[in-house]
Amino acid sequence: MAKDFSTREENYSKWYNDIVQRAGLAESSAVRGCMVIKPYGYAIWEKMQAALDKMFKDTGHANAYFPLFIPKSFFSREADHVEGFAKECAVVTHYRLKNDPEGKGVIVDEDAKLEEELVIRPTSETIIWDTYRQWVQSYRDLPILVNQWANVVRWEMRTRMFLRTAEFLWQEGHTAHATKEEALEETYRMLDVYADFAENFMAIPVIRGSKSENERFAGAVETFCIEALMQDGKALQAGTSHFLGQNFAKAFDVKFASKEGNLEHVWATSWGVSTRLVGALIMAHSDDHGLVLPPKLAPIQAVIVPIYKNSGQYETVCNKAREVKEALEKRGILVKLDDRDTHKPGWKFNEYEFKGVPVRLSIGPRDVENGTVEIARRDTLEKEVISIDQAGQAVEALMTEIQQHLFRRALAFREENTRMADSWESFNRILDEKGGFILAHWDGTAETEQKIKEETKATIRCILLDENKESGKCVYSGKPSGRRVLFARAY
Amino acid sequence: MAKDFSTREENYSKWYNDIVQRAGLAESSAVRGCMVIKPYGYAIWEKMQAALDKMFKDTGHANAYFPLFIPKSFFSREADHVEGFAKECAVVTHYRLKNDPEGKGVIVDEDAKLEEELVIRPTSETIIWDTYRQWVQSYRDLPILVNQWANVVRWEMRTRMFLRTAEFLWQEGHTAHATKEEALEETYRMLDVYADFAENFMAIPVIRGSKSENERFAGAVETFCIEALMQDGKALQAGTSHFLGQNFAKAFDVKFASKEGNLEHVWATSWGVSTRLVGALIMAHSDDHGLVLPPKLAPIQAVIVPIYKNSGQYETVCNKAREVKEALEKRGILVKLDDRDTHKPGWKFNEYEFKGVPVRLSIGPRDVENGTVEIARRDTLEKEVISIDQAGQAVEALMTEIQQHLFRRALAFREENTRMADSWESFNRILDEKGGFILAHWDGTAETEQKIKEETKATIRCILLDENKESGKCVYSGKPSGRRVLFARAY
Repeated sequence: MAKDFSTREENYSKWYNDIVQRAGLAESSAVRGCMVIKPYGYAIWEKMQAALDKMFKDTGHANAYFPLFIPKSFFSREADHVEGFAKECAVVTHYRLKNDPEGKGVIVDEDAKLEEELVIRPTSETIIWDTYRQWVQSYRDLPILVNQWANVVRWEMRTRMFLRTAEFLWQEGHTAHATKEEALEETYRMLDVYADFAENFMAIPVIRGSKSENERFAGAVETFCIEALMQDGKALQAGTSHFLGQNFAKAFDVKFASKEGNLEHVWATSWGVSTRLVGALIMAHSDDHGLVLPPKLAPIQAVIVPIYKNSGQYETVCNKAREVKEALEKRGILVKLDDRDTHKPGWKFNEYEFKGVPVRLSIGPRDVENGTVEIARRDTLEKEVISIDQAGQAVEALMTEIQQHLFRRALAFREENTRMADSWESFNRILDEKGGFILAHWDGTAETEQKIKEETKATIRCILLDENKESGKCVYSGKPSGRRVLFARAY
Repeated sequence: MAKDFSTREENYSKWYNDIVQRAGLAESSAVRGCMVIKPYGYAIWEKMQAALDKMFKDTGHANAYFPLFIPKSFFSREADHVEGFAKECAVVTHYRLKNDPEGKGVIVDEDAKLEEELVIRPTSETIIWDTYRQWVQSYRDLPILVNQWANVVRWEMRTRMFLRTAEFLWQEGHTAHATKEEALEETYRMLDVYADFAENFMAIPVIRGSKSENERFAGAVETFCIEALMQDGKALQAGTSHFLGQNFAKAFDVKFASKEGNLEHVWATSWGVSTRLVGALIMAHSDDHGLVLPPKLAPIQAVIVPIYKNSGQYETVCNKAREVKEALEKRGILVKLDDRDTHKPGWKFNEYEFKGVPVRLSIGPRDVENGTVEIARRDTLEKEVISIDQAGQAVEALMTEIQQHLFRRALAFREENTRMADSWESFNRILDEKGGFILAHWDGTAETEQKIKEETKATIRCILLDENKESGKCVYSGKPSGRRVLFARAY
């Protein structure tokens, strides 16, 4: 175990940053609030993209690409949207630089001022609905089921690697439908796709729900989300799916002739997840030994480290290691043989442990003699010596076992850290002593929600989709309430 | 054949735009010079990306992501680079909008002015080499073999779908090496990867060469390229690979400790291809019936159209069509069964012909009786009736045959349109009457090159890598020349 980085106990925030940096996931750049996603971090994002993209295509969606720039005036078209998005954003005002007449590099050419400023997309509803107007005439043109993989920019003041950066990578689905029912069905379908992805690929249990009005996407009629619990007891919103009603169709005048021949506004949804998920993945599973990755999203699923004392042993051990590598590859396992002679086995053990590689195999001269291999799993740190002939089978079984174990462990953690609060005092005590999710009654008003947020920094994460109706009294105001909602402090 | 679009003969430029628009590849957007890449066009780009990405990874590269924004001052660091790139670019000057006090939407908040303007990347050498400084200390940290898939912006005045747009999608590889030899080897390796991709996936023959100094990438020591010939006799640069020497390492102070313990500047390459390749693909193979796609890059490789007169026939024919679909899918063919009853077979025939689907199968009631299917290939428009049991095998064979035929056809066209010119008069006559590639002697001076360009609009496309030395006289100046170079008018 490396000693020069923080444990969760000592400093959770520093622990997270240490993992991001030392595991080679990302680093800050010369541009304020923008990060460089390094090859190992990007490889995780690529695995996420591949899995999600397949799920989108399996549910009938196709990818497309819309402009990075949005004319400033587009934001004013949808009243709520402009409040939510047009404020903290990057604005392009000029299209040329010129040599500084005083010889100091280059300066903005004031003659090259845009007539209308362009905003770097913080989200693409406006430019996409301006485009959809051309695509839709009749009900036959619907539905439009389109997704975009893109970069977006929101000028955040306080940024954190992966969790909140000025520029980030994401996907945004934008669909258009003939009926409200169909659009709502799509909104729920994509929420389910996200929950499926979070639980079955990221091994993170999530709670599905709808957002309160305060927390709703600017321009949405209803926002649904999946919420996950991190190891420090804070919640993280891992994906959102919005039912946009006819808001954007009205703002951008997108109408269709129905089967009955009426001209009607189109119904819309949008939904997205981002590189923030990489942050969630790190925080959900990692430990004081470094990153822990679920096998389905690990760029390297198994690493083989040869152990030797001299060049004669090196040859023998590496030959055997190559056989094991082939056996694993035949089973579709992403395996790396680190046969570099510039680094010692101990260094390699630490390195791959820190990088969260799910399974490590090591082979020394005695293993070659005995026909064995040592196999270590990253999640439990357990080691075992097995017959080398069993290596492929054993690692394949561990892929499933580790994936499931990480999910079970995260689920148990969440269950331990989800509590009911029936008094304001209890609500505060739980927040201060334990954190985690709190199920509490709420009177349904934005005013109470706001006061709770101001006094405790806890927000309503969501109104559970599958909650039981239960009458009670608002934990803050004491007014009657028909159900509990989910509170937490959040990222 | 659709009659409401141009033929190549009538108006080549309109023919191209008609294909882009009517095949659903792309359209212009509300933002000047920026296009919307529609699902069918984007699907072609995705297939290109997948093939290229695999080739990059097979040659040892990994993907990463660097910021969209580049501090203005970075451009001034490399003297040639600033001349080439910092001029026509999108400049972010502010980071906030606010409500217009006069109530007219939103305006730029002048209080939110950036201390240093940010340029939207036109290419990423500067920000990447600023990052590499942190990544490189010793020779053990080299080579760095990184690629980025990203959007870039160059403020072009005259734009054309795919070929030249203000924003475009591309990949840019940026590698760092300990020696000049290794960097040069990488430059050539990636040029070969591009040529391999162009010829074996796009079915477009290309000529490999180096650029003259005039046409070199700003900041490169040497630029290599692949050049393709379009059907109107104009050349198109389809990819570039740059040997950057130590220019960026010096500009951004990137040094490493060599094995011998000396501190040396790192050697660099960069290489890229873009969505421009989609434009090349369209122009290389398409005909007066619409788009023609090589099977390896076709989002739909085969389409099945059922032919019927009533609902009884519809059922019988569609059942059989589904069997054929399964048989094709088993062979890994991307097949679509268009069983919509809202469109007539004739409409569908035109549609898929126009969209360049390589193979069309049609099945009518008589085919069901006879156990046959009609199979039509898009490249030659030939039709044949075959036994339905042979459909899978026949389509699979056509995938290879069409791919090869398109390449052979494009190669024959290029050979017919590559001519030697040994006098200025002949040079001009070829250009005006035939276009195409011209192999001619050049005295090697930038001055002559510039004059030829001014007088004829033809440029030196490249100095061939595998040219034969041959002494002669410059076609323009009459001065001695040691080899022929490749001229053409170009996109």
